Parts: sequence; structure tokens; C-alpha cells
Amino acid sequence: MQSRRRFLATSVAAPAVLAAKGSYPWAEVEKMIARGDVKGKLTRQDLPTPALLLDLDAFEFNVNKMVGYVKGKGRAIRPHGKTHKCPEIAKRLIQAGAVGACAAKLSEAEVFAQHGVRGILVTTAVVGPYKIERAVRLAKLAPDTIFCVDNIKNATDMNEAAKAAKVKLNIAIDLFVSGRTGITPGEPAVRLAEAMQGLSSLKFTTIQSYAGNASHVMGFEARNKFSREVMARAVETRQMINKKGIECTHLTGGSTGTYNIDTEIDGITELQPGSFLFMDVDYNRIGGKDGAFYGDFKNSLTVYTTVVSKPTDELAIVDGGLKAFSTDKPFPPRHKTEEGITYAFGGDEHGKLTFAKSAKALNVGDKAEFVIPHCDPSVNLYDKIFCLRGDNVEAIWRVAARGMSQ
Amino acid sequence: MQSRRRFLATSVAAPAVLAAKGSYPWAEVEKMIARGDVKGKLTRQDLPTPALLLDLDAFEFNVNKMVGYVKGKGRAIRPHGKTHKCPEIAKRLIQAGAVGACAAKLSEAEVFAQHGVRGILVTTAVVGPYKIERAVRLAKLAPDTIFCVDNIKNATDMNEAAKAAKVKLNIAIDLFVSGRTGITPGEPAVRLAEAMQGLSSLKFTTIQSYAGNASHVMGFEARNKFSREVMARAVETRQMINKKGIECTHLTGGSTGTYNIDTEIDGITELQPGSFLFMDVDYNRIGGKDGAFYGDFKNSLTVYTTVVSKPTDELAIVDGGLKAFSTDKPFPPRHKTEEGITYAFGGDEHGKLTFAKSAKALNVGDKAEFVIPHCDPSVNLYDKIFCLRGDNVEAIWRVAARGMSQ
Repeated sequence: MQSRRRFLATSVAAPAVLAAKGSYPWAEVEKMIARGDVKGKLTRQDLPTPALLLDLDAFEFNVNKMVGYVKGKGRAIRPHGKTHKCPEIAKRLIQAGAVGACAAKLSEAEVFAQHGVRGILVTTAVVGPYKIERAVRLAKLAPDTIFCVDNIKNATDMNEAAKAAKVKLNIAIDLFVSGRTGITPGEPAVRLAEAMQGLSSLKFTTIQSYAGNASHVMGFEARNKFSREVMARAVETRQMINKKGIECTHLTGGSTGTYNIDTEIDGITELQPGSFLFMDVDYNRIGGKDGAFYGDFKNSLTVYTTVVSKPTDELAIVDGGLKAFSTDKPFPPRHKTEEGITYAFGGDEHGKLTFAKSAKALNVGDKAEFVIPHCDPSVNLYDKIFCLRGDNVEAIWRVAARGMSQ
Repeated sequence: MQSRRRFLATSVAAPAVLAAKGSYPWAEVEKMIARGDVKGKLTRQDLPTPALLLDLDAFEFNVNKMVGYVKGKGRAIRPHGKTHKCPEIAKRLIQAGAVGACAAKLSEAEVFAQHGVRGILVTTAVVGPYKIERAVRLAKLAPDTIFCVDNIKNATDMNEAAKAAKVKLNIAIDLFVSGRTGITPGEPAVRLAEAMQGLSSLKFTTIQSYAGNASHVMGFEARNKFSREVMARAVETRQMINKKGIECTHLTGGSTGTYNIDTEIDGITELQPGSFLFMDVDYNRIGGKDGAFYGDFKNSLTVYTTVVSKPTDELAIVDGGLKAFSTDKPFPPRHKTEEGITYAFGGDEHGKLTFAKSAKALNVGDKAEFVIPHCDPSVNLYDKIFCLRGDNVEAIWRVAARGMSQ
């Protein structure tokens, strides 16, 4: 490829030949990437590494399977945007049948709304006067946005700001079911729902019960048991609130790990999974209904790297390290196709590849593509996703909410 | 603060009172942040969390101490830009006496050069025709840029591209001294230097011997021994090359962990430390000349968070998680001032704080500020650094090379 390209660049028959794939000068490729004008022009090999790649066939399979499954069970799906941070993906999910998009934080929701996404649920409470001012502004732009609260002080603050701005805020009560945020299910949550009845600029509609700790319980049966126990408390809380004459129409929760568990539980109206879009090494390990490998969804997301050094015959160094893969899991990236190639982190900028006897050792200039350990924080390292159909780059999607953790 | 601000926002005496700190509406704060027009207007409390903060007094102490020390030992310093990815910091270091800036990757170097930084050393080899085309373009913009090579094939590719573009590329031979990139020191490196004599568009001047594995050896004496052994091979290689009549004027290496070791070794001409600017929990642990805590430089960089939930009396949840702190180290962020507050990761978006009996438990809306486990990949999560003098925000610096891992 390299010598061919060099040959082409100096060929006298350039005009016709240069239109072939892989034969553009970089200055032209750079402009194509900046414009997103890549379809039919660039292939995987043309991309600067490390690059975040999305296999569109696998991605579309995942979208159709999850949305179809959840809707088939009579539930709504509001996939979690913290996984992708990409308005283009949120909109495609809505086109496929999702009711909206979750956003982990206010600033992520703002980006989604600015790009035309509607039906947003902000899954972390909005705290402090500046952020509450922003929440009210967001509600003006996207009135169907739902905000979580878990205490009366915050609810009162939200209500005052909404009243001053003459808007009504849709509210979900966030339940403490996974060791993170929320109010204790049962009586404490019921009291909060009752107290909010006096706050006329808040419209309480929803219970949020997101059990992040359920989603990664290893083994389907153990996960089934765990999620059913956790979700039973949320279902019961919703019933208690409804019995008080307070209408609570929605109960949202559920993840990629529990989609085929939570859709069997009466009283859960809506799921908010995210990782099914991409899958990762972590999720593959939790086990599915059929066995130890959780393969309900395909690994659509990879990081594409280049070997930049070959210090010994046994060791190849690629150009993706701690800044190319998030590292909160104890296991490293997995080579997409070659079991005999093992990746180990080699600092901020590099990865170290070693080779089993069965594997062909890679050399300087060779490419290596890896399934990521944990998709959400890895996507958050990149500004764009290169979308591929086979080897051809079909589109570039901006990770417009990257870094929006506020 | 919160109630005071709300009072002010509805006060009839608004015009005069609103000019006080903390009393702007968010729409105004947002514009100030976008423009960088913050000095004398915003304080720490006004910033949206999670935010990356730089204590300018500590930062300036670190810059002056390191640059002064290395220059005092008769060596040059070219601090590593992979740590900060911020052209403003690179330029301040050059103003303070640095000869330039290292860049881990070509794309990082491009951003530095576009912002006017000169004296760049790209510490990872540039591989493949597109990237080599970019390297040549960079050399046209910033002719004093130095590129690393570690094999004759890559050197030949670089030479051909340079010749075609009628530029000369400054070259460093990268030595394999830390288990990552490079060519074996001694004869293999000498042969590469000799072979490059025939490549007329390359100007070989430098040996790079960056021992990333030396920088974090625990305990000063062990680190001293380790770095001296590694660096002896680099010094010897340089001597062997010079003895062949090939002029090798520079030997660059050294890190924050070895600055006061490598500056004692004859033959090392230049250091490339980075972490001294910010320091982190990881570096604090390696031990200094004086004891178990490595305190030669100050912790200038922190992540500022807000408590967004208080599910139980013993547990407070802050809004900074895996997307606010890099997680490649086995230990969590450390509270900046309170030993009795312990942080544990609570997923992508949150951190869990627990409290010793001696510590005051935090409540919803309270702030908590943390020293980061590992500075380089954490900075790479943020688009801007808020620079503080005491509590006042003095400037906002763009992390312009964030995500530039290509």
C-alpha cells in the first residue's frame, strides 16, 4: 500500500489513478475527514491511529435487536446517552423506536437538546443555583425533559427556579438501589413524592431505579435474582405512591445486563440500557442465558492502532495506550480477531503486543484492532467515531457531548 | 452562598449588587468562561463541576524549581507536553528557560506548532505514509522539530518524503531502555546511526533514552541505581556513535522521578520531565531524597466536584467518576485537604465519599476537591484548565491537544 501510494503520487497518469482508494494526499484526506465527506473515498487503512471505529452492521444489529425486544415486551426504551455521547446515535435510536435518550449529566443533556434530541431524562440530580438555572433553560428548549431529584431541598430549589421562569419541570424520584445516588425506597420516597405535591412548578411522573450493580452480576441466574430483588422495591414504592392518590406513571431502570430480566417484571415501564450499542470485554464476561460468554449483542466498537516500534522479535508496540482505552477494568483490550495476540498497557501512549506461537507476529506499520474493556469512558476519550461498512468509511459521527461530565 | 445568590437575583437593588462575586446569572458566567474573561469576576465556587483546577502559585513554584534546577546543573530542559497538552503551558515553560517541548505523538506536536510553540521533539516514531507526509509538513512550519526513529526502514521512508518536499528532518534515535519503543542500545543503535549517514535529508543529532520504568521506582536509592544503569547504556551508545566520527550532540531523557539523578550523569544533555508541573498521587508515593513522600514539587492540579446526593448519613456522592479521573492506578483520588474523607469510584459519573469520625461529613451542594491519581491521562479528559490564584479564577487555558493521541 505504501509503495503503491508513493508510486501514484509521482505518476504521470495521476488524475485518473489518484481517484482510486488510498491514493489521496493527506491534505485531501484531512479535508474529507473535517467535512465528513468520506463515503466511497476512504477505507479503514486511511485513518490516523489510534481511531475509534464503529462497525455499522453490528451496531444496527444491536439497535434493532434491543429496541425490538424491549418494545415487543410492551415497555418503552430510553437508551442511555452516557454510553455514546453522540447526538447522531441518539437520533438514530429514536428513529428506531426509542422514546428519547437518557443523559448522565445536565451538560450532556444540553448538548443532546441543542442537536435536536427530545425525550431526555437527566439521570443525575441537578444541584446548585447555576445548574438549576441551566436546567430551567433546558426545559424551555426541550419541555419534555425529565429531571431526577432525591431530596426535598433540591426539589424546592428546582421548583422556585421553575416558578420564577414560568416553566414546569418534569420530575423523577431517584431511588437508592445501587449504592450510589437516590433516596431510600419505600416510605422515604413516598414522603418525598407527597412533599412535592405542594410544589406547583414540578410535575412528578416517574420513579428512577437504576441498579448499576445489578447489570454486571456474573451469571444469568444470579443476575436475575439480584435484579428482581432490587426492582421489587422500586415497583412496591411506585405502588405505595399511587395508593396515596399521587399518579406515578413511569418506572425507569434496567441495563444491557438486565434487559431480558427487567422486561419480565410487572410495573417497570421503561428501560435505559446503553452498552448494548457497542458491547465491551466487561459485558462479554457477565454470562448470558446460554453460557459464560454474553453474546446477545455484537462488539461493534473497536480501537484501531498501528505498530510503531518492534524492539524485539517477540514484542510489538502499538500507538494506543492509557489515552486510547479507559482502564477502570482489570483486564486489557482484546484483539478483535486474533486470540494469539495479547495486549498489555505500555503507558499513556503505547500498548505492548506479544504473540502466541499460533499467531503471526506484527511488524512496524501493521495495524491491530481491539475490543475495548469498558465502552462508556473509552468513547469519552474521542471526538469522533469513524463508522465503517466492511472496510469502507461510511460516515464520521461527532462525540459532541465528549467531556460533558458537568 | 446559594440563598444569598437567589436573594440577589430577585433583589430590587440588582444593578449594583449583581456586580459582586458569585452574583451573575449563569448566562453571563457562561459567556465569561467562553471568552476567558474571568479575572476578578469568578471564584472557584462559580465553576461548573467536575472541573480541572490549577493552583497557579503551586504551578509556578514547580516550573521555577525544575527549570532552575536542571539549568543550574548545566543541562537543557524540554518538558514533556503529553502531561499538559496545553500550548499556553508549553510557552510559559519556554519563557521560563526551557529549550522547547516534547510531544508524545505527531498530532500533539502539530497542535503545539500551530499555537507557536517551537523546539518540539516528537517522542514516538512517525509511521506510515500519511503521518510521514504530516511530519514533513510540520517540519516546514517548525523546522527545528526533532523526530524519533528506531529502524532503518522508517528512516528511509522519512528521508524519501523529506527529499521530495525539499526539507531536512532533525532526527533522534530512540533507544529501547524501558520495555517500550526503540532500538537496542550499543551496536544496533550505532549501525542505525551509520546507515542514516547515507540519508541526506535527515540530520541526526540526538539520542533519546526515556526510561519510563525508572521514573516510578519506589525509593530514591533504588531509583538512583536503576536510572544510572539504564542511562549508562545510553551514554555509552552516544560515545560509540561519536567515536565513529558521527556527531551526536544531544542525549535526551529523564523524568520528574529522576531529575535529580540524571542531572548528575555525564553525557546526558537534556531532560524531558512532565509530571513535575502538576504532581499526582502516584508520584507522591515514589519517595524522595528525604523520605517516603516525594514532595519535591507541589500538587498544583485538582478535580473540583460537588456532592449531588446524600443517600445515607455515612455516604455522600460527588459528580466526578471514571470520566473525571483516569483510573490506571490502583489507588483513588485523594482529598486535597481532609485526610478523613475517602473517595471510592462509583461508576462512570460518580464518586463515593465516606468519612472518618474526625472528618466533617459533607452534604448535598458541598464541594470536594481531589488530587488526581495520575495526571497525564486525567488532563486528557478535559478541554480546559481553570487557573486559580487563591480562590479567584485568573485564567482559563485550553487543553488544545486533548485527544491528540495520533
